[in-house]
Formats: sequence, structure tokens, C-alpha cells
Amino acid sequence: MEILRKRIQQDGRNLGNGILKVDGFINHQVDPKLMDECGKEFARRFKAVGATKVLTAEISGIAPALTTALHLGLPVVYARKQKPITMPDQVFLTLSPSHTKGRMVELIVSPEYLGHGERILIIDDFLATGATILGLARLAQVAGARLVGIGALIEKTFEGGRTALSQLGVPIESLAQIVSMEGEQIVFGKEG
Amino acid sequence: MEILRKRIQQDGRNLGNGILKVDGFINHQVDPKLMDECGKEFARRFKAVGATKVLTAEISGIAPALTTALHLGLPVVYARKQKPITMPDQVFLTLSPSHTKGRMVELIVSPEYLGHGERILIIDDFLATGATILGLARLAQVAGARLVGIGALIEKTFEGGRTALSQLGVPIESLAQIVSMEGEQIVFGKEG
Repeated sequence: MEILRKRIQQDGRNLGNGILKVDGFINHQVDPKLMDECGKEFARRFKAVGATKVLTAEISGIAPALTTALHLGLPVVYARKQKPITMPDQVFLTLSPSHTKGRMVELIVSPEYLGHGERILIIDDFLATGATILGLARLAQVAGARLVGIGALIEKTFEGGRTALSQLGVPIESLAQIVSMEGEQIVFGKEG
Repeated sequence: MEILRKRIQQDGRNLGNGILKVDGFINHQVDPKLMDECGKEFARRFKAVGATKVLTAEISGIAPALTTALHLGLPVVYARKQKPITMPDQVFLTLSPSHTKGRMVELIVSPEYLGHGERILIIDDFLATGATILGLARLAQVAGARLVGIGALIEKTFEGGRTALSQLGVPIESLAQIVSMEGEQIVFGKEG
């Protein structure tokens, strides 16, 4: 997606060790217009999968998941990393390694909002190793819901997430594909 | 705001001790259409204050802040509660008591995205004691930015937040005002 790739080239920063800083428009400061355009594009690409709910993980998945859900006319659920006091005692919980935190984090969803018969579209900011998205897919599975698609704003193809997720057998879409971050460069793939 | 009040009456739950559960449409599962309507209403009410940026706190402030910023054509910054590795070492940080977590939490903003000359509109999900919003106001102040308005989806008037925030001297808008949560009831004010 041209506008996202251009924005990454303009405002993204390669911090080394495969870490792409996009804090100026996605992860800390957010460009709502860009997120809305990305949500519109996800909605277009996933129109045919018949999703009934969008699922993401707090925190940085919320913006693109919200705009995607808005354009699809669906509710969005974000998995919590800490159980708030408003959540029932019985929850769906899985552990997932956090790339940026260097430790395992919990992903928690209330059974009130994820259940049998749901068709789940996962939307997140990054597809890197795929660990967070696999965690979300496990939550959907244990809830008896069916995964129907996976979308990420930015895919780092060199971290192998797409291969890890291929076992899930659903369409995977990313809006910008980064194939290499050697040195200080950010190199995009043909599609991204 | 009629549609928000109706939704709280329909799907909100009074858990006692002043805790209002809105996990079905704001805090865990989110209704994007409702958030978009609320954002549009905030944009209408704050059109004249000349904001240059919307500021909120992760996590549950993100959805209404994003839609408000979208309708105002502004960027949104969400204060982090943990410093990610992509953030510089020098940050703006303040402590704020968390009602739902029962402890102090950090509110952190990078100086990259909050600075002199900015006109800040704070948007959050709840206005209760006002502690989180006061924390955000301190961050804006220390950054040399000017606070120009405060908006919250739901105000619990009986927790005194509006009085605590009145010292800031800016317009305060809430879209649903709850005046009492005695017993299992949720009682709205005339305005909300």
C-alpha cells in the first residue's frame, strides 16, 4: 500500500536488530487519517471472508483494528495483557513472547466477547515472527470461534511469520512488506 | 449524548463500589460505530478551541481519542504506561493512581511528540476522580504545551473529577453524566 510504505520511508526509523520505530504515526503518536485508510484497505481485502468480529491485541493493534472494524461494520475485541477487575474470573488466556518487551506476556479475552460460531479476523500492527498473532489464533480456537483471516500493517518478511502462520490455512494480508533491514536501510518488497 | 446513554443503560453494568463495566462496547470489546459517533460529537464541541493534537492514555482512551482526532484532522498521542524500547531515554513521565488497578501507574510521553506551541485536547473514556486526566495535563504542561480542552465519554459526577479539573481553566465536556450508582442503579444527569 503506497501511502503506508511512503510514510515508513519518510518517518520510520531502523533502530537496528530488526526493530522498526514507527512511533510517529502508529505506535505512540498515531495518524488517524492513515489508520483510517489502512482500515479501509483491510476491509476491502477481507470483505469476502465473512468475519463477524475483529480481534487484536492491546496496545498498538487497537488503532488499525478499530478502523478496519469500522469499515466492515463489525465489533472489535482487543486481548488484554492484564486482567482488569471488570473481567470475570474465568477467562481465555495464552502466553506470547513479546519482541519489544523481551519477555512473555499474557493475552486475555473474556468468554463474554469471544465464542462459538464467531468468524474472527485478526488485525495487528506488525507481522514479524507471528508469535502474537498465533497467540490470538489460539484464543479464538479455544473459544470455539473460527479464524477467517489475518491482516498486519507492516510485515517483516525476514522474520518468518508468514510461514509460521501458514498452518492456520487462512488468507494473510500485509499492507507494507519489509524484506530487509540491514545496516540503516529499510528495503521494501515488490508487493508492499 | 442520547445514543451513548442508551447503550450504557442497555449494556453497562454497575459492579458496585462505583465501578461501571462497559467492557461490551468501550473497554474490551469496542463498538467502532459508537466510538465514531462519539468522536464526531467531541469534534463538534471542541471545534473552536484550536487544538493541534489530541492526547490520551493507553489503553481504553485510544478508541475515542482516535475517532475524535480523525474528525478534527489532528494527530493523537497516547501516553504509555511502560516505556517501550523505541522511546528515547529522556521522556516526560508522571505518576497517576489507577482506579481499576489499585496502584500508581506511570504515564510516559516522548518529547518527540509533545512540545512547545502545541495546543492539547485531552480525550479519555472516563472522568471519575480526574486523576488520569490531571496526569496528562501535567505532561502537557511540563512539555511546554497548552491545554485547551478536556473530553470524556462517561463522567461519574459523584467522584468530583470536574471540580478537581476546574483549576485547569479549560472547557470540560462529557457525553454521558452519571450522577449516582447506588445499589444496582445507574442514574443519569439531565445533560448526559
